[in-house]
Amino acid sequence: MTEGDARDRILALGFEPAAADVLAAHFADAERRGKSGHGFRRVEWLASLDVDPAARAVLVESEEGFERWEGRGALGYLTLAAIVEATLAAPPERARVIVAAECFPTGVLGYWTRRLANRGLLAVLTATSPPRLGHPDGGPKLAGTNPLSIAVPSSDGKPLVSDVSWGRVTYGDVLAGAATEGDLVPFGGEQAHKAFAAALGLQALADALLGGGYGAVLLVAQPAADPVPDLRQRAAGVRFPGDG
Amino acid sequence: MTEGDARDRILALGFEPAAADVLAAHFADAERRGKSGHGFRRVEWLASLDVDPAARAVLVESEEGFERWEGRGALGYLTLAAIVEATLAAPPERARVIVAAECFPTGVLGYWTRRLANRGLLAVLTATSPPRLGHPDGGPKLAGTNPLSIAVPSSDGKPLVSDVSWGRVTYGDVLAGAATEGDLVPFGGEQAHKAFAAALGLQALADALLGGGYGAVLLVAQPAADPVPDLRQRAAGVRFPGDG
Repeated sequence: MTEGDARDRILALGFEPAAADVLAAHFADAERRGKSGHGFRRVEWLASLDVDPAARAVLVESEEGFERWEGRGALGYLTLAAIVEATLAAPPERARVIVAAECFPTGVLGYWTRRLANRGLLAVLTATSPPRLGHPDGGPKLAGTNPLSIAVPSSDGKPLVSDVSWGRVTYGDVLAGAATEGDLVPFGGEQAHKAFAAALGLQALADALLGGGYGAVLLVAQPAADPVPDLRQRAAGVRFPGDG
Repeated sequence: MTEGDARDRILALGFEPAAADVLAAHFADAERRGKSGHGFRRVEWLASLDVDPAARAVLVESEEGFERWEGRGALGYLTLAAIVEATLAAPPERARVIVAAECFPTGVLGYWTRRLANRGLLAVLTATSPPRLGHPDGGPKLAGTNPLSIAVPSSDGKPLVSDVSWGRVTYGDVLAGAATEGDLVPFGGEQAHKAFAAALGLQALADALLGGGYGAVLLVAQPAADPVPDLRQRAAGVRFPGDG
């Protein structure tokens, strides 16, 4: 499938051209970065969801340092795209916390933070999903894979974009048949309690800000310094997270 | 050593009584929670540092959603204690990002986030340190152990407090002789690149906000919901991060 094919199929599901552009570009970027679990196969998955293609998120609270958006039935991808555009159009003077309630699915979080970092903003993003990770010692699944993405702009045009999820495999791997639900445990082996603690902490944090349902929490801030070029120089060729 | 012994030794180093209380209480809490690398042995370590016991951090920028503090030679513990007190006295209506420059050492991050969560605030805290973690494939040390602590208040009085650092062992373990510098690598075995990515992302994020030196970045926010009691009920007895 090409990005154009994906766009055509998404249009056929009833999405408007601008929304189809957003979705097809996200899936194509995931394919290019080797994250095919978040790539074109999600087009078919979209078709299986009961979503209103015309639904759009609403900004329900807006202050300099805090915003709350509600999905109102929109796909999470489209809500995050709207938030990124609105933030780039009116960035915070210093910092802003943005809560996106009813925001699911969210795709590759690094895709959204990278767009902000490419335009000079620091970005930290997490998002919840249905419970998929339990304590490594056993018990019920309590936390989503709840990835945490951090993007830091760089004057050399190559932002640092980390994007860490807490499972040994991704749910995309499970959807792709490359792994089973049983493989979806916190990563880290003997120290998997650390990944579980991070996932559960992010779950409770997001739940406390969202007030119910699945969603995303984004922090954007203005950098006071430009540390990435120096970090890359010190790294002497070590591959950085998010580098293509 | 008891908390009182620690306090006496700290007073003998020239610290004022209020500062000695803060430091001794921090070390005693670390001992009680089994984090002895951050406990009473740090009193001797304090004596080896070249610090001005009378130095105090200054709040240099203060807005509803953003604060910047500068350590001005104060111990990081004392700077974080001052920030926690100031935040509890004047909490944000919604959310606030607090940058603490020249803030080192910071001790057990969960100690500070727990104090905020015990009073109803969501708290997320990270702090940098000298470079101690390299890429698992090799190369120079690029990131501190850069722990991330998340604390979420709970109406049952038992906040969820996660506190994850990215090393297989802590630097405290190294100081205590329980591990070597060579053991201080990103945790996760075959997936240690994930812990490295989280540590490096937090390093660059903090460096970009701090503008130089070692320090801490804190996010505090008002919760919109109370998810922890329900999470504990669903957990059916699984031990939560930070539980005693």
